[in-house]
This record gives sequence, C-alpha cells and structure tokens, in this order.
Amino acid sequence: MTVAEDLIRTLGPDRVLTSDEARAARRHDYWMVSNLRDRQGRGAPMPACVVRPASVADVQATVRACVATGTPLIPFGQGSGVVGGVIAGSEAVLLDLGALNRVRSIDPVNLTASFDAGLNGLAAEEAVAAQGLTTGHWPQSIALSTVGGWIATRASGQFSTAYGNIEDIVYSVEAVLPSGELVVLGRGPRAAAGPDLRHIMLGSEGTLGVITGVTLSLRRKAEAQAVTAFAAQTMQQGFDFQREIVQTGWRPPVMRQYDVRESGRLHADAKDCTVIMVHEGPASLVAAETAAVTALAARMGLEPLPGTIVQHWLGHRNHVPGWDQILERGIVADTVEVSAPWDRIGAVYDAATASVAEIPGCLAASAHSSHVYRSGLNLYFTFAIRPDAEGDMEGAYFESWQRIMAATAAAGGSLSHHHGIGRVRRGWMETELGATGVTLLQTLKSALDPAGVMNPGVLVPDRAEGGAR
Amino acid sequence: MTVAEDLIRTLGPDRVLTSDEARAARRHDYWMVSNLRDRQGRGAPMPACVVRPASVADVQATVRACVATGTPLIPFGQGSGVVGGVIAGSEAVLLDLGALNRVRSIDPVNLTASFDAGLNGLAAEEAVAAQGLTTGHWPQSIALSTVGGWIATRASGQFSTAYGNIEDIVYSVEAVLPSGELVVLGRGPRAAAGPDLRHIMLGSEGTLGVITGVTLSLRRKAEAQAVTAFAAQTMQQGFDFQREIVQTGWRPPVMRQYDVRESGRLHADAKDCTVIMVHEGPASLVAAETAAVTALAARMGLEPLPGTIVQHWLGHRNHVPGWDQILERGIVADTVEVSAPWDRIGAVYDAATASVAEIPGCLAASAHSSHVYRSGLNLYFTFAIRPDAEGDMEGAYFESWQRIMAATAAAGGSLSHHHGIGRVRRGWMETELGATGVTLLQTLKSALDPAGVMNPGVLVPDRAEGGAR
Repeated sequence: MTVAEDLIRTLGPDRVLTSDEARAARRHDYWMVSNLRDRQGRGAPMPACVVRPASVADVQATVRACVATGTPLIPFGQGSGVVGGVIAGSEAVLLDLGALNRVRSIDPVNLTASFDAGLNGLAAEEAVAAQGLTTGHWPQSIALSTVGGWIATRASGQFSTAYGNIEDIVYSVEAVLPSGELVVLGRGPRAAAGPDLRHIMLGSEGTLGVITGVTLSLRRKAEAQAVTAFAAQTMQQGFDFQREIVQTGWRPPVMRQYDVRESGRLHADAKDCTVIMVHEGPASLVAAETAAVTALAARMGLEPLPGTIVQHWLGHRNHVPGWDQILERGIVADTVEVSAPWDRIGAVYDAATASVAEIPGCLAASAHSSHVYRSGLNLYFTFAIRPDAEGDMEGAYFESWQRIMAATAAAGGSLSHHHGIGRVRRGWMETELGATGVTLLQTLKSALDPAGVMNPGVLVPDRAEGGAR
Repeated sequence: MTVAEDLIRTLGPDRVLTSDEARAARRHDYWMVSNLRDRQGRGAPMPACVVRPASVADVQATVRACVATGTPLIPFGQGSGVVGGVIAGSEAVLLDLGALNRVRSIDPVNLTASFDAGLNGLAAEEAVAAQGLTTGHWPQSIALSTVGGWIATRASGQFSTAYGNIEDIVYSVEAVLPSGELVVLGRGPRAAAGPDLRHIMLGSEGTLGVITGVTLSLRRKAEAQAVTAFAAQTMQQGFDFQREIVQTGWRPPVMRQYDVRESGRLHADAKDCTVIMVHEGPASLVAAETAAVTALAARMGLEPLPGTIVQHWLGHRNHVPGWDQILERGIVADTVEVSAPWDRIGAVYDAATASVAEIPGCLAASAHSSHVYRSGLNLYFTFAIRPDAEGDMEGAYFESWQRIMAATAAAGGSLSHHHGIGRVRRGWMETELGATGVTLLQTLKSALDPAGVMNPGVLVPDRAEGGAR
C-alpha cells in the first residue's frame, strides 16, 4: 500500500488529493529558480499526494504515517516563500494547511487573537481590524502568506521598527511535533520557565514540526499617523540619520532608505537617496516624533521631500512583478536581505552592489533598508541579470547570491534578515552559525526528527556537508 | 584520581579550590530554603571542588573532564538566584565564573558591549555608563549578579516595560556546550536563519551549557526623565489604568502598582493602591507621555500623588532585608513572581493573597506588579509566615508557594515571570509547559547533555517525574 492509499484510508478521500492538477499546483514555492527550471522543462516533480487536513488530528495522523513509513513530509502554506523552502519530491507528502483557516478567537481586552495556521495573513488582519485592532505585522506577502508561515519563516513586517518582527508579536504557537504529539508553546505574557520553546518553531521552516495554530499579541489601531520623507545625498548620510533617530529613542514603525537607483520607484525625479518614514501612535507622540526627525534632518543636512512620496509607497507597497514577466525577457532577478551593524552596513552596501554590477549582463544591483534596530539595520538588495545564453541564467543567479553573501559575511553581518534559509542559503549556514552552531542545529533536528522526514533538504545542512562533530 | 586532582593537573592548582572555606562559601544560591536548612543543621553539602576558570579554554577543559567522569557540574555566578538553581552535591564540581570578569569591548556606534559572563552586573553597567550608555537592564540584583546569570535565568530589569527583558537586550551569547565545544549564538542585528539558538541558553539555568560571554545591545542614556505617581482605590482600577496606558501606545520604562499593604513601603500614609511610573526618552516624548498618563488618570478617577514617592523608590529600590534577619525571628518568607493576561490578573491577585492569608501564622500576603505587556502583566507576591514550631517552617514555605502556583495556574497565567525554575518550581513544569512541552524540554536536554552532568536536579523534570513519552 502506498502512503497515499494509507492516508486515504486514515483521513478519507476528501482530504487526500492525488490528481495531477492538485499535485502539479503545489510542486514548489515562489523561489525564482523553481520557476526558471519549470520554464526550462526541468521543474520539480509532483509530490506523491497532497494532504489537506481539516483538523489538528488530521495533521497528527499524517505526521505519524510519514514517520512510520520514512516518507518526506513538506508543510505548505500558500507557497509565497522565495528561498526554496518547498520543493516536492516524487516520494513526498505535501501537507497543504489551507483548509485549517479559521479565526479561532479574538480577545480585545488582552489584545490577543488565535488563528489556525493555514489562515491567510490578510484575512487574519481583516478579522482583527473589524474590532479596531491590528496584528502590526505587514509583510509584503500579507495577502499571499499564512500566519503559520510567518512563524515558520521568522517573517518581518513593514512596520517592524516599532512593532517588532514576528517573534516579538507571537504569544503562543501550537504545533505537531515529529513524534505526532501536539504541543502549545508559550503561556502568559512572559515566562522564565526554561528556554523559550516557541523559538524551536520560529524559523524552523517545516523541518522540526508542523505549526497548526498561532496566537498573536495585537495592538489597537494607532490614534494618529503621519509621514515624513527626506533626500540624503549619500547612503551613508541616510544611515547616519536613521541611526541617530533610533539611538535617541524614537521608533517610527516604518523607516526605509532607498539608494538613488531605487528612489526612482518612489518619485520620478529622484536624484538622491530617499528616506521615508511612517509615524504612528498617540497624536501627541506622533507630533513630537515628527517634529524631532524633521529638526534632526535639517541639522544633518537632509532635504525634506513631499509626504505624497510616502503615501504613494503606502498605496503600492505590496505590488511586485511576477517571475514569469522577468524570466520571459531572459532575465534572472531576486531580492536578498541581510543585516549588519551600523558601522559596517555602508561597506556591505558598497561591496555587494559593486560586486554584482560586475557580473556580465547585469541590469540592476541596488538596495534599500527597511528594518531598523539600535545596533544596525537590514539591507534588501535587488539584482537583475540578463546573461547571453539561457543556459547561463541559473549560473548568473547563483553568482549574484554568492557575491552578496560574501560581501555580507566579510562585514560580519547576518546572511538572512527575514526571508529565511530554504535551499538557496543552506550552503552558507556554517558561515552564519559557525561549525558548532551548525552542529547544534543538527543535534536539535536529529533529536526532534530522528526519522529525518520533516522537509528534508531545507535549512539544516546534512552532517556530511559540514559542522559534524 | 579524583575529579579535583584531575582538574588540578589540567588547569593548575590556582584554578581549583579545595579548601573547606572555598567550598563552603559556594554550597548554594540565595534560595531561602537553603538558608533555612543551613540554620537547621541540614544544609547542602560542600562540592568536591570549586573551579575558578581564567579563560574560556579552562571552562572547556572543566566541562570535558566532568562529562568524561560523569561528574555533576554546577555553573555559579554570584549566587543571587532565589529558586534553588544552585545546590552543591558532594560529588559535584562547582564552576565559579567570577574570575571571567572582563569588559571585552564597548562599541558606542553600534551600541553593543561584550562582557565575560562572570562580570558583575553593576560593573558592566558602570563601564558603559562611563560612555553615556546604559544596558537598560536593572534587575534588583544588579550589584549581586553576573551578566551571564542574567542570560541563564532569563532575567528582567525594573525598566523592562520600555526596554525589554534580557532576551530583548541580548545581541549574542558565547557558551561552552556539554560537548566541550564553544559556540557563539547570534549574528547581526536580526536574523532569519533557522531557530534563534540564543534561546537555548536563555533560561537554561546551567542545564544545557556554560555561558562564557555575552554581548548586549545598549541604549544611549535618555535625554530626559520624569516620574508620576497615582493612588488607585482598588487593584482593578490600577490594572485598568496600566492597561489603558500601554494599549494606547505609551511605554513608560517603569510601571509599578502596589497593593494597599505594600503601598506603605512607598509612603507612610498610604490608604490606597499606588501606581508609580518613570518616563524616559527624548524630552518632548517624556513631556507628551507624562501629560497623557496624567490626563488619563484624571479621566479614570485616580488621584495624583507627589513624585517624591517615586524618587524614594528610585533611591531605595534594591534594598531588601537578608534571609537571616527574617529566619532568626522564626519567619519564612519569599517573593513569587508570575504573569497573567489582563482579564485574569485580578483573579490571580485575589485568589493567591486570600489563599496564603489562610495559612496559620501568616503575617503578610501582598503583591505588586512591575512588568507590563500589551497582553497582560506580572505580579510579584510577598509572603511571610511565622509557624508555631520551627519544624513547620519548611512546610509553611512550600504551602505558600503551592497556593500561589495553584491560583496562577487556575487563571492560565505563567508560573514564573523572571526568577526562573530552579528547584522550587520544577514540580510545576508540567503545568507550565504541558506534558508534551516537558517531553520537548527533556528531549533538548538529552540531546545536548546525554551524560546528564549539567546542573542536575534543576529546571528539567526527570523523565520518571512526568512528561515521558
């Protein structure tokens, strides 16, 4: 009996999809390379079957069946990941959590809301918005991703500088472990009760269990919102400005800085770098913050720009071109996000953009920053390369990645800010964690998933690849 | 050859203390029960020896020697823990990190500072204060604890409501794993590179490795500070006031609410509950926040109190009576900190104080709150019992704990806000984490420390005690 037949018997035929259409639609996530390979006729195979659990018990049964048979199990939200975290194998069971999509509860007193993990992110936001609340978590993929996926990938939202990344917003996580047991991690507003086990699931990318439910800590919608925008003559001037803002104790939810190449996306006549901010909170706080950053900009020599630039960004911020539009023009492109301390971020920017620009056929190598911390910030690179021959496309793609990773590593930054590891960064995990850090991650993986069935090939380097004791 | 002899040969005689004086001084931490047992002539035994490593390599050698011989290894900072996280066994090696006490570096651009784990907390703060910076972390024990201890126990500081708990302040953690390998966890201002492995050490209480170095993310000293104080007629009125403050988007670093019994500590003529706050940040933010909370207090019916109350607290906040002063009067006493959601915190307060008050000989059962979150807050209970007979002292002590834990558990709160688990709370770990959560913690422990030598008896329930598969 195949695993699919076994699962049909256990879960019923409605929950197990075996049609070519259902399996073909879920072969991979939104990693550019998977789309490129599809176009080149060497795409990922279809999974053995697609399971659409209707309950947590269905998830448990699926996990147990896969462990018992040594079958790879690949959790799947809405497939908006961009680092190859989902690529089906022909033996694999693909676990599509899309039918686990209820809003479980919304608590306006404690500002918490509980969701099934498979719920669409925008649907979750709209449910709490109806009560005057917000999750405060606005990834660009909000309409294309799930709340469980936010946990699995350690997502960041566009308002993170004040509202935090997903690890700062999550209250508790419900997950099915590879043992088949259900666990709820996180109790109370804060605990000192051993290691915070929520962090085993945060960033686990399907390799350590299946997230089935999420409770987030919400916010009331802010009383006031204001926007500011400024032109900086150099990236370094903009970085210095942003550093001064957060290190003096202001925390605009949105702080973004575009290099001169990307500033054109915001306003057609951009001749400089552009810094934009969204300020939110009580009206008097927003007034004080807006006045303070405006005064600081004047003191530091940045020019004010019209707020319409920021309003334009707010209105269009989640629009991105599809890979097919790019690939059909013979171009490979991607975004790569890293983080680094303040005194090294300029070097990362300069080295990475200059290095990618040297790749033959390079059409674009640019960056903006979008998440700010007391100790540094992120950079979000965009590259586009049109190689001479179609056969060189994948090589040009990985060469671009290699150069951005190398420039970041040389400056001591983190190689992944918020897209995760998946397959595209797995080879750099030893650079990121060190050999002992990789061993520690492998130890965690082996202890929780001794059968090695949970999303194999993703995140955790194989022992033979390095980091072994 | 004994372990002590082995370690003397490896590390040299200067690093291994075998005198009765050295061993007796480090038999336990500041758990009241250990002090009580000392007075009753049934105190903890001396460890086999005390190792005072002068380098990370010394720590690695000690860990390896203990693992090789199956010898219990007990990391020790300055012994200010209050939950029994350190109790020596006569076979054990006590690893006193006090000689690893350098300030490694201070970086005023990136606002980071690196310390040896054994450095005293106040010394660390003073080192960064000399450059106009602060860690923002002010546990009551700051002068009695180490920066490594802050990580090991998941500590909270008095300014946590704006500045976060230690997990929000830590940038990276250096630790020796039970394998003897050195690892540095945390790279860059933020990463999405798998589970955040810093959290394996945060709260590990010596059971998963030895923390040897810590890098914290600092703050500049605030431009302005202001204080406010208000009288609330009931605890619930105060909770509602605090909730409104943080849920409307204000974040005073210090927010504390004392019940009427504890208000007398702050001002002699207290007839009501007292809420005190410290506001810090840019001057215009502090002005806006102070005005907002004052207006809110008036609207919600709280009476303003003089700021001198808060200044008195600031000046005396770390003064606590010693256990001996209490025990010699035949009294057992302790503080117990928990957290709960807003809508249940009043029930926790009422149930726990009422239940403890019923214990024969109860002299005091009171509480204040001191750490506030969007979704709830903590309570910090104080109890004092004078049983009829000395032989009943330990029983009265554990009965008080039992009642506070039960009241918190019934309300769905977390049983430990920031003191940790140690021995006193270990029996409640299944209530806190659930059976599967305990299994997960045991799995982590077994995977990292298969020899079981790292601080046995602390934090992690034995498999036989529950949570076993």
